Amino acid sequence: MSDTPDSAVRTYTEQHRAAFLADLAEWLRIPSVSAQPEHDGDVRRSAEWLSGKLAETGFPVTEIWETPGAPAVFAEWPSQDPDAPVVLVYGHHDVQPAAREDGWSTDPFDPVIRDGRMYGRGAADDKGQVFFHTLGVRAHLAATGRTTPAVHLKLLVEGEEESGSPHFRALAEERAGRLAADVVIVSDTGMWDENTPTVCTGMRGLAECEIELSGPGQDIHSGSFGGAVPNPATELARMVAALHDTEGRVAVPGFYDGVAELTGTERALFAELPFDEETWLRTAASRATAGEAGYSTLERIWARPTAEVNGIGGGYQGAGSKTVIPSSAFVKLSFRLVAGQDPERIQEVVRSWAEDRIPAGIRHRITFSPATRPCLTPLDHPALQAVARAMGRAFGTKILFTREGGSGPAADLQDVLGAPVLFLGISVPSDGWHGPDEKVELDLLLKGVETTAHLWGELADALR
Amino acid sequence: MSDTPDSAVRTYTEQHRAAFLADLAEWLRIPSVSAQPEHDGDVRRSAEWLSGKLAETGFPVTEIWETPGAPAVFAEWPSQDPDAPVVLVYGHHDVQPAAREDGWSTDPFDPVIRDGRMYGRGAADDKGQVFFHTLGVRAHLAATGRTTPAVHLKLLVEGEEESGSPHFRALAEERAGRLAADVVIVSDTGMWDENTPTVCTGMRGLAECEIELSGPGQDIHSGSFGGAVPNPATELARMVAALHDTEGRVAVPGFYDGVAELTGTERALFAELPFDEETWLRTAASRATAGEAGYSTLERIWARPTAEVNGIGGGYQGAGSKTVIPSSAFVKLSFRLVAGQDPERIQEVVRSWAEDRIPAGIRHRITFSPATRPCLTPLDHPALQAVARAMGRAFGTKILFTREGGSGPAADLQDVLGAPVLFLGISVPSDGWHGPDEKVELDLLLKGVETTAHLWGELADALR
Repeated sequence: MSDTPDSAVRTYTEQHRAAFLADLAEWLRIPSVSAQPEHDGDVRRSAEWLSGKLAETGFPVTEIWETPGAPAVFAEWPSQDPDAPVVLVYGHHDVQPAAREDGWSTDPFDPVIRDGRMYGRGAADDKGQVFFHTLGVRAHLAATGRTTPAVHLKLLVEGEEESGSPHFRALAEERAGRLAADVVIVSDTGMWDENTPTVCTGMRGLAECEIELSGPGQDIHSGSFGGAVPNPATELARMVAALHDTEGRVAVPGFYDGVAELTGTERALFAELPFDEETWLRTAASRATAGEAGYSTLERIWARPTAEVNGIGGGYQGAGSKTVIPSSAFVKLSFRLVAGQDPERIQEVVRSWAEDRIPAGIRHRITFSPATRPCLTPLDHPALQAVARAMGRAFGTKILFTREGGSGPAADLQDVLGAPVLFLGISVPSDGWHGPDEKVELDLLLKGVETTAHLWGELADALR
Repeated sequence: MSDTPDSAVRTYTEQHRAAFLADLAEWLRIPSVSAQPEHDGDVRRSAEWLSGKLAETGFPVTEIWETPGAPAVFAEWPSQDPDAPVVLVYGHHDVQPAAREDGWSTDPFDPVIRDGRMYGRGAADDKGQVFFHTLGVRAHLAATGRTTPAVHLKLLVEGEEESGSPHFRALAEERAGRLAADVVIVSDTGMWDENTPTVCTGMRGLAECEIELSGPGQDIHSGSFGGAVPNPATELARMVAALHDTEGRVAVPGFYDGVAELTGTERALFAELPFDEETWLRTAASRATAGEAGYSTLERIWARPTAEVNGIGGGYQGAGSKTVIPSSAFVKLSFRLVAGQDPERIQEVVRSWAEDRIPAGIRHRITFSPATRPCLTPLDHPALQAVARAMGRAFGTKILFTREGGSGPAADLQDVLGAPVLFLGISVPSDGWHGPDEKVELDLLLKGVETTAHLWGELADALR
């Protein structure tokens, strides 16, 4: 659709920028924290708000889809062109927990604009990136003079992504007919950085578990009993310490079975990116790199599976000291998975690894959260090339390719719908997902609008 | 003083039993909880009550000694015998917190007598055991016809033991002249059980520290950064796992330097005690024993130094999961020390052991709490033998020897006064120190009275 005048898209976007940002800020004010039951009502309110906004945008079909958990939003805008390809856009309207005392400079649920950025929980992950599709499709219509999009457009915006999407796969299976698409566009990722627009080609999968070890029936006196009974906190530390070998590899037997190793081309493409370790470390708020021997930092976060401690706790954690042997201790672990790894199999090998390590006198409980599959789109796929072209027109520069170290339910859509998954995200690493002072760069957000304004034509051409 | 007729002591004790118990009950009604500021007035009231009661008992000198915290009580009863040895009795008049809803069958501060036991907070720890000295010294005088004790008797009853005795060492140093003694008798421990009277010969020392490791400047996304930066919770677990070797020994270099090894006689004496592992495990609320290879359970808790995790924490500890790499994680460790170990030296070796283990990119902070020294009185010490003889006369049976795995400020008296510390306690494990339904066995309490009635003569003979 090279007949879409890029300047018309830009002008339309600029004209509607203020109203678009005001609407996004309104949405960010709804604390749709899916992990905290006290926010259940807010998650529902967020779904209703979005559904209303999509209807206002022009989507002739908007629906709220119930799940056993939080509701999803579905919208559909058929193309007047009967053989237009069907595109399903995926995003989520729930957000991570956030509280002012976590280190936020301002109320996480009262967004503010400072220095060309909007700060607020969900600004980048993922409300901002869902929201650019609303103005995007309107700019697409305005610039092309169409009354319906060049593709048959569907949107599915779930409400439990930050809680591990426990009901997403079942929802996708149940609604597979309504969701059927030739291609899935996921807008829940990011680009390399502010100056290097990139398309993501895959995400890691995720398996999470909590392991609790119990020793004494209650906290007991470490003087009277210390040194003579197993201490569950010590035993837990030993288990965590055994999770990696000295080369930084995950030491769970069978963990690497089937892992898709990087090709020479993929390693070379990664190496084209302007990676600067110091900058990356600043983004990671870290002072050193670490990890699996034999791989670069980008390879480690994008193409290698990991095991990380997300939380650990047990015994006395208050001020000062308390001389107890804790009754129990727990660790929350997450395993990032890459193409070729099966989450169910990973759960099995982790469980048997852990169970082999329970000493006498210690009881254990291992709980797995629903897992997320990894996914990866081949570099030569025509739809992936169309995304790169649309982005190139918006940004006016060469588009490079990345992957995403995080995880999303995109792979479930790939499985259930049998469609390739493409990633279109404009967030940048400094956006601070899941942390305090999450923000989105307004200029990039608007480039997201422009990209989608171009994308529907590019995809219609590429897939026709 | 075998000329003290044991029957005269018994008769005197029985005659004064009712009044003695009524007085103790009155003292237990004062909720002298040193850890709770709202009870500051009660702790003072407890000190005043005790001081008055000691004056009534006959102590010509009774004083309340102020500290920056709760007041201590000091009393002195010089012997008419100018070369009598000087004995200092130590105890405490403050108690642990207690509330009916913690599981008490009756009000913890309204003592009741049921089945030959007095139930109430402080009945055993430590008011009961301080209080037997009052009737004890009167029985001693009555049975021997003396007007002053056979030893120069001093009592120091502190008011902050249950809060970690923060000002005790300074008080002892400041008042060292007044406290000077040939021997210290601590009445704040227990016996093996109801049927096995024992003398405790030592307590373990205690060094406590908190180690905090910091990685990222804030919690960061485990998908975006996982596998490529050091995780402080994982590193902390590795450190804790390295704390012991596979034989259960503390793996900190220099930790065992100077440790007084058990002699064959000591091991044989421990082995004489009617230890039953199943009973002990029930008391420990545990399902298995564990610990340093080559030592029995009693040896492990009494005569071997330990390293225990008292608490550990870091990252996300709420419900469900949160995919972060924690910014920091901490562990609270306590090290029980035995004779021959110097707490300052232990702090040094622990610090350098920990610092040797900090990987690149991780910052650390190690904080030590004030330490407590171990103490141990040799089995052949004449004063210890005198305690055993006095106890044997009261109980009419062979006295065995134990140690105490816990720690107390007794060692400070040993240090400051340069006097050996002996332990005379009649509490039993079922007394429920620090728990609900704390009680003291009345028969044993009266045996405590009789023991002290014999002790002053025995000690005067042994130390003359």
